[in-house]
Amino acid sequence: MKILHTGDWHIGKRLNGVDMIEDQRHMLDQLLDHIDESSVDLVVVAGDVFDRSNPSQSALKLVNEYLYRINIEKGIPVLAISGNHDSRSRLDYGSYWFEKSNYHMRTSLEDITTPVVIDDHHFYMVPHMDVLEAKVFFDDDSIRSHHDVYKKVTEEIATVMDKDAYNVMIGHMFISNGKASDSERPLSIGLSEEVGADLFEAFDLVLLGHLHHPFAITHERIFYSGSLLKYSFSEVKQPKGFRMVETDNTKCRFIPLHQQRDLVHYQGTFEEVINETVMFEDKAAYFKFELSGMSHINDPMAKLKMIYPNVMELRPLVEKREHVRAQIDVHQSSDREIFESFIESVHGEPLTEYQGQIFNTYFKGDADEADSD
Amino acid sequence: MKILHTGDWHIGKRLNGVDMIEDQRHMLDQLLDHIDESSVDLVVVAGDVFDRSNPSQSALKLVNEYLYRINIEKGIPVLAISGNHDSRSRLDYGSYWFEKSNYHMRTSLEDITTPVVIDDHHFYMVPHMDVLEAKVFFDDDSIRSHHDVYKKVTEEIATVMDKDAYNVMIGHMFISNGKASDSERPLSIGLSEEVGADLFEAFDLVLLGHLHHPFAITHERIFYSGSLLKYSFSEVKQPKGFRMVETDNTKCRFIPLHQQRDLVHYQGTFEEVINETVMFEDKAAYFKFELSGMSHINDPMAKLKMIYPNVMELRPLVEKREHVRAQIDVHQSSDREIFESFIESVHGEPLTEYQGQIFNTYFKGDADEADSD
Repeated sequence: MKILHTGDWHIGKRLNGVDMIEDQRHMLDQLLDHIDESSVDLVVVAGDVFDRSNPSQSALKLVNEYLYRINIEKGIPVLAISGNHDSRSRLDYGSYWFEKSNYHMRTSLEDITTPVVIDDHHFYMVPHMDVLEAKVFFDDDSIRSHHDVYKKVTEEIATVMDKDAYNVMIGHMFISNGKASDSERPLSIGLSEEVGADLFEAFDLVLLGHLHHPFAITHERIFYSGSLLKYSFSEVKQPKGFRMVETDNTKCRFIPLHQQRDLVHYQGTFEEVINETVMFEDKAAYFKFELSGMSHINDPMAKLKMIYPNVMELRPLVEKREHVRAQIDVHQSSDREIFESFIESVHGEPLTEYQGQIFNTYFKGDADEADSD
Repeated sequence: MKILHTGDWHIGKRLNGVDMIEDQRHMLDQLLDHIDESSVDLVVVAGDVFDRSNPSQSALKLVNEYLYRINIEKGIPVLAISGNHDSRSRLDYGSYWFEKSNYHMRTSLEDITTPVVIDDHHFYMVPHMDVLEAKVFFDDDSIRSHHDVYKKVTEEIATVMDKDAYNVMIGHMFISNGKASDSERPLSIGLSEEVGADLFEAFDLVLLGHLHHPFAITHERIFYSGSLLKYSFSEVKQPKGFRMVETDNTKCRFIPLHQQRDLVHYQGTFEEVINETVMFEDKAAYFKFELSGMSHINDPMAKLKMIYPNVMELRPLVEKREHVRAQIDVHQSSDREIFESFIESVHGEPLTEYQGQIFNTYFKGDADEADSD
């Protein structure tokens, strides 16, 4: 069986206030092309279909449209679960009807021991659940961490598992030692999120969502698809795409897709960026600039956007100057010295002549007064 | 064909802050019983399925559950449209899959000339649309009122209509001279909402939503089902239920259902209500009390709720006392007389001794001072 494994679509996500829906559409279009080209038998969406529990109308429309194209137009079965960003009732809406077309959207803990059976493949679908919820559902006070939750879940599944079948688990969790990114919302506050990979030994294959890096872990049978797009600047170097699994030999390849607009993080000088002495592959990319030499520039963001329309973030480049801070002893330094050191540590540049004049205008030997306080 | 015609469910509606979802479930349960008893062939939901464009999770769950029971469990085709309270994209979500089970949820203007055909019955489904939207959709600047909208809609339908079929229109609108209630949100501000019944002469049957009174109009072929519940105190005397239409003879009966808790509007004295000298059929009903004799009662609402737990609204009963106001000439009257008249007109009772004492404490012959101002 050929399975296309994707997840963490986060449809409707806004990054730094920018709606990513057209970028998401661009990725899904490529995904559809691959479904045709590779004669995929099944599509798995491992949670976080939407970015919010209450998705926008355009987000609802996009998901509706693409799942229609995959499931109804192409007739490909779809197995999907809810992730920690999704609302269960929202995703569950319509699921009775979806099942009749082999689109199985599972959001309930009650279904975890009822696999979806396709040929000799048994798919155990485990939606995201939090620790308290699992504790109540299983009526088991010993459940105190995410690891405990999945220990219980796998024990429950073990009681019904047919060992002669090819057993697949679809889940949404943080596997121990997985590489995290900035855009994954914590699964819980103050509890260990990590789940040991050893819990899943009974499965032939485990297809996961939650971590946005497709190579978040290295394992023979456990895989993350990674997110549909780069959803934070901590992901600029991560490839984005989907996984193609062949269950005959549990071969699992990662297939990268092309982002319509890349995320670019650049550190340098304002001058080289505004004068275009540094060249970027795509000026319309989503940039995060950290630039020095901006302190005297009026509205540098507006100026940058004339050339790079999709700048998302702009920060002054602060070089490491621990030595400066170490050298200043406020009891031994004049106000002027303290001010100079402050300006340099904030702007990453020495005091300009104009800033010196401003200082002289406002600080007229009030040192004694200030000290007396 | 036997059609059960319902509409204006407004699932998720809160009346005076009270969640009506259990009352709604009670009505839908009875509706389901009738579907079985009467061997209904088709269920029509004429808009305003939800009360808000962004329904709560419990609202989504209820609608999902009951439409599942009707359409999947009982195998009854369902024809539904969006009303002015619904969000189109929200209702449209999943509709591709619904259609495969003969649950047709229509939210788009593009489909109005594509009837749903069941045997020799053609159902033209016209979701609610506003005037501006219709103007843009039909690219017709002459559309300036709701009547114009439906004139255009019926003209468009006329171009495709098969006169040999039994033609039914399902819509959501305000038919001219229909009885309105307080809970129908206006379709537009500043425009005439009324649509002339004469536009629909080509149809054998018109099943409508929007007006909450099941007898909002009297017509041989045009019917409102009325809302699922009494959704405002202006509806206390309206029966609530559904309509059963037999298309062989266009016989259309209204079938009343039993509200779990009735809405009761009572005008009287606080004393008779609190001492239970006046008897109500159900003390747990949703009451609107307008009572006299409350001015000296501390927190009358709390006291009433000890006996009538679901009081929704409490107002002082103001009797008509135009003659009082007419008699007072502020230039000719003393402060005491003006005050007495004011208290009486607000509370509907003469000044009490205690109120008189309070008056004397604060008004110590300041008449001159006040007059000089």
